[in-house]
Amino acid sequence: MSDFKAVAQAVVQGAGQLHKAKPELMTGFMGLHKAAMAPGALDEKTKEMMALAIGVAKLCDGCIASHLQKLVSLGLTADELNELLGVAILMGGGPSLVYATHALEAFQQLTA
Amino acid sequence: MSDFKAVAQAVVQGAGQLHKAKPELMTGFMGLHKAAMAPGALDEKTKEMMALAIGVAKLCDGCIASHLQKLVSLGLTADELNELLGVAILMGGGPSLVYATHALEAFQQLTA
Amino acid sequence: MSDFKAVAQAVVQGAGQLHKAKPELMTGFMGLHKAAMAPGALDEKTKEMMALAIGVAKLCDGCIASHLQKLVSLGLTADELNELLGVAILMGGGPSLVYATHALEAFQQLTA
Amino acid sequence: MSDFKAVAQAVVQGAGQLHKAKPELMTGFMGLHKAAMAPGALDEKTKEMMALAIGVAKLCDGCIASHLQKLVSLGLTADELNELLGVAILMGGGPSLVYATHALEAFQQLTA
Amino acid sequence: MSDFKAVAQAVVQGAGQLHKAKPELMTGFMGLHKAAMAPGALDEKTKEMMALAIGVAKLCDGCIASHLQKLVSLGLTADELNELLGVAILMGGGPSLVYATHALEAFQQLTA
Amino acid sequence: MSDFKAVAQAVVQGAGQLHKAKPELMTGFMGLHKAAMAPGALDEKTKEMMALAIGVAKLCDGCIASHLQKLVSLGLTADELNELLGVAILMGGGPSLVYATHALEAFQQLTA
Repeated sequence: MSDFKAVAQAVVQGAGQLHKAKPELMTGFMGLHKAAMAPGALDEKTKEMMALAIGVAKLCDGCIASHLQKLVSLGLTADELNELLGVAILMGGGPSLVYATHALEAFQQLTA
Repeated sequence: MSDFKAVAQAVVQGAGQLHKAKPELMTGFMGLHKAAMAPGALDEKTKEMMALAIGVAKLCDGCIASHLQKLVSLGLTADELNELLGVAILMGGGPSLVYATHALEAFQQLTA
Repeated sequence: MSDFKAVAQAVVQGAGQLHKAKPELMTGFMGLHKAAMAPGALDEKTKEMMALAIGVAKLCDGCIASHLQKLVSLGLTADELNELLGVAILMGGGPSLVYATHALEAFQQLTA
Repeated sequence: MSDFKAVAQAVVQGAGQLHKAKPELMTGFMGLHKAAMAPGALDEKTKEMMALAIGVAKLCDGCIASHLQKLVSLGLTADELNELLGVAILMGGGPSLVYATHALEAFQQLTA
Repeated sequence: MSDFKAVAQAVVQGAGQLHKAKPELMTGFMGLHKAAMAPGALDEKTKEMMALAIGVAKLCDGCIASHLQKLVSLGLTADELNELLGVAILMGGGPSLVYATHALEAFQQLTA
Repeated sequence: MSDFKAVAQAVVQGAGQLHKAKPELMTGFMGLHKAAMAPGALDEKTKEMMALAIGVAKLCDGCIASHLQKLVSLGLTADELNELLGVAILMGGGPSLVYATHALEAFQQLTA
């Protein structure tokens, strides 16, 4: 099993490295990120849950680690996570079930 | 541009045809669907929004039509849709922007 | 609904056009195709069923049209198709159900 | 290289954990699984081969581990696996070749 | 066959509609787009060719239409397109061949 | 973090093993590979950059390792890699950013 704190940290570090090398590129990405996640008609937690659901659907461990870390800081409960994963499994079948188990493991590590 | 009401209807008809041919298979799928979408820690609208976001991320017009039709019946606003699409674009870049434009068109057709 | 005979025919025509322009490229692809589909430990029909299942899982109408046309010529029954689609739905959830309905429609057109 | 027995075991454990937390969700999934894999017009081994081919095409190690473990118990031969992987490579190119090598490694571990 | 000029135009219109509704979101996306496509170590045409290759690999007609339209304005030749499609086929197998034929059709329409 | 030299080596070894077992299959794949990558209207480095961009977009570590190893031998600079990754992020959003960080790590390992 992966160390999901390390996975999330590696994404942050790599993005920081890319920011140093190509500041305008990562400024562009962060601008999109900020606009997409800004609370409005939907709050930030709902938006992060959608991002996590997509990350599970795309079979992307780094996405799971990053968005789950944010969601834990926003107060995501185990029950909310389980139901989110149910939607991902409905929309992705067996492969999404596999990455749902990654998300469960990540949640245990990130809330330990 | 597709006729998204017809797209949603074709999915329903095809699923019905598969149900007649293999009732236990579609009973299994509908059981998963019902369990995944049942309100609990998250309400049905939030769950359908996650399903739609995944449908956009997977570039699936039939998913967009079906889940958007359900969301319209649950009272989804244009503003909520736009923000949902923002998350999908953040998690999918250009291809998700393309299918976000399909979702906008579908919303106009389904709410006309 | 698409005209799946036309979809399959367009793939053949486009591949032929690419063959004229870059013969070594399409000779390479056809060499891979021939080797992958040659009967051996598994027969051609089983191999084509796996290819169709992947085509459904990848949400690819042109793949569905092409491999289903071949499978119809190999004697695929409606019952076999339905069960193949069940596996694709298990491995892909809602989006695969959508494209399973495309495959059902294609089968009706290609066997009419 | 991954330890594919551990990968398959982690999927089982995570699914079990999700079953405890949301029994109706996993009962739904298992109902779909049972219906999709039940022998009928196609036998279970053919269905599991299609599931494995999709798992390779979706670049999903957990799927490869789980479905290959089942296939080994159903008597899959190395020759049958190699030909299955050929179809996956035809339908997925380079990325599928990468995960075909994972499947070869997994087969060696699971049959050792 | 699709009308790829209309497909490209629909993406532009939908993106414009989203820009009106959520200006900060599309400003964010356009900032990322501008930074990613700005000539630097690689020129714009090379970057657009990579974007088109990804669009083919992701089976996205709207991406093919949009990036091919830009590439035609940058002087892409039929020979360059054919070789780009060869790479996409190597990296995506049969499904990419299907969308390579869409790109060939789009090129004929956009250069007619 | 993965050892990307080992990842690239594992792909070569697995492909070699498949070649021994099914020579005609891998001869077919290598024929496609050779034809797709042969310099013509586009040079080999441009083609390998497109292959790497697709590998990042498909979230495939083995593809990143293999194509980056080749690109390092063809003289890819850090600046070229960063700009290639910008296009992949534009075409894939957050998940592609995650795998862009894998590519950065792989580049450091392969050029150390």
